[in-house]
Amino acid sequence: MRKALILSYDGTAFHGWQKQPNALTVQESIENVFSQLNSNKRVEVVGCGRTDTGVHAKQFVAHIDLTEEILLQKDLLYKLNIMLSDGIAIRTIEDVPEDFHARFDAKNRSYQYFFHQKKDPFKKGYSWYCPQTLDFDNMQEAASYLPGKKDFTSFSKLHTQVNNNICDIKSAHFKIEKEGFVFEITANRFLRNMVRAIVGTLVEIGEGKLDPKEINHIIQAKDRGSAGKSAPAHGLFLSQIDYPDFSSGDYFE
Amino acid sequence: MRKALILSYDGTAFHGWQKQPNALTVQESIENVFSQLNSNKRVEVVGCGRTDTGVHAKQFVAHIDLTEEILLQKDLLYKLNIMLSDGIAIRTIEDVPEDFHARFDAKNRSYQYFFHQKKDPFKKGYSWYCPQTLDFDNMQEAASYLPGKKDFTSFSKLHTQVNNNICDIKSAHFKIEKEGFVFEITANRFLRNMVRAIVGTLVEIGEGKLDPKEINHIIQAKDRGSAGKSAPAHGLFLSQIDYPDFSSGDYFE
Repeated sequence: MRKALILSYDGTAFHGWQKQPNALTVQESIENVFSQLNSNKRVEVVGCGRTDTGVHAKQFVAHIDLTEEILLQKDLLYKLNIMLSDGIAIRTIEDVPEDFHARFDAKNRSYQYFFHQKKDPFKKGYSWYCPQTLDFDNMQEAASYLPGKKDFTSFSKLHTQVNNNICDIKSAHFKIEKEGFVFEITANRFLRNMVRAIVGTLVEIGEGKLDPKEINHIIQAKDRGSAGKSAPAHGLFLSQIDYPDFSSGDYFE
Repeated sequence: MRKALILSYDGTAFHGWQKQPNALTVQESIENVFSQLNSNKRVEVVGCGRTDTGVHAKQFVAHIDLTEEILLQKDLLYKLNIMLSDGIAIRTIEDVPEDFHARFDAKNRSYQYFFHQKKDPFKKGYSWYCPQTLDFDNMQEAASYLPGKKDFTSFSKLHTQVNNNICDIKSAHFKIEKEGFVFEITANRFLRNMVRAIVGTLVEIGEGKLDPKEINHIIQAKDRGSAGKSAPAHGLFLSQIDYPDFSSGDYFE
């Protein structure tokens, strides 16, 4: 029976979501605990996308076909969370149609990137420490040029295997929070390393190295070399996945 | 010139506050950066107490005698924080009388111990995950028997070098927070491992293994074996230090 898993993970210890040889990944960790509850017969989990090494997910959606043996487990969710590493939590297991696909059905993905300007040791794993003076208005202006259906090759890792680099960015803006600020971006899809390349470029604009309007020329250049350096992985969170019938946010308080 | 440092640290990577051979400690990390700004001549930092391996400090107070060379540094605080590991932040450097002593002058120390009952990967380093059912009223009742001037040998690590094990606990109680709960305790002094031994015992009371009133007999026994297991270090924070003329909390927003 097909189910959707709504989960969170701290990416620090993982080589991203997607399974790969000789590296600890979130996907493999989750498949392993389900297999243990399935007489060690393999169970496949399909994620809504990939996250890179060190990137976190507040809300991640995956689908899985549960066998009767797994479905009959008492306190399944409790058991899974006890068995899983402390870096991964399954929040809920939801009923979905048998043809639900976590990746192909997802309409939009949202990311958040956190910054703090006053040193705080308890944020070190979850936010980028930027003590330098930043021109917030310029960063906000540059972010406002991002939305739209455009070729984002300039913000993509080179040599990836995708057919085209066109993404439809629905929104992109900074928000001031109590002890820092956060960049929020939503799009139908993201290229590899795209949010980190955008954030790194926006910070260079905040530092006065680039004019805010320069971001339009960077996009037009379709050349990764024209954009800024990538921001570090530890400030980035996949924050919401939207489907035609629900959003991962529906399952969080 | 004597100054007080008000600082925070994430204890995860440190073998506690106090310097020791062949181990990374907070005290040594701080002394090293001050020495670098002092032509590599040694600078001593005296802390308000010790914290054990893995224990955090939201607010820690230390005193230091700054040389003229250090005092003349431009942007001293900014520079120190850039040089220090990301696990340590100096919040402020405060003027104090020349005879101020961070340890001997401290009247009270406060600790907080954080718990969460719903798995959350982003709390894994800073809170104890206790998914089991806990009788909160019983834990609160047991905590209410703690305050007073008593011999707390039952909650002390064996074979420590202190003369006596009498502590004056001023307050001890649980507080419900948005996504978990926190145990707060204030005393004139704490024995080694004392808060973690108390917390571990209170959780056993919450689990129904012990009656709340049992805590009085445990104290009277003056025997570490009579109390419960120690709670893990990563949920514990030194949270405030009070002096006759100020509290570390005065320097935090």
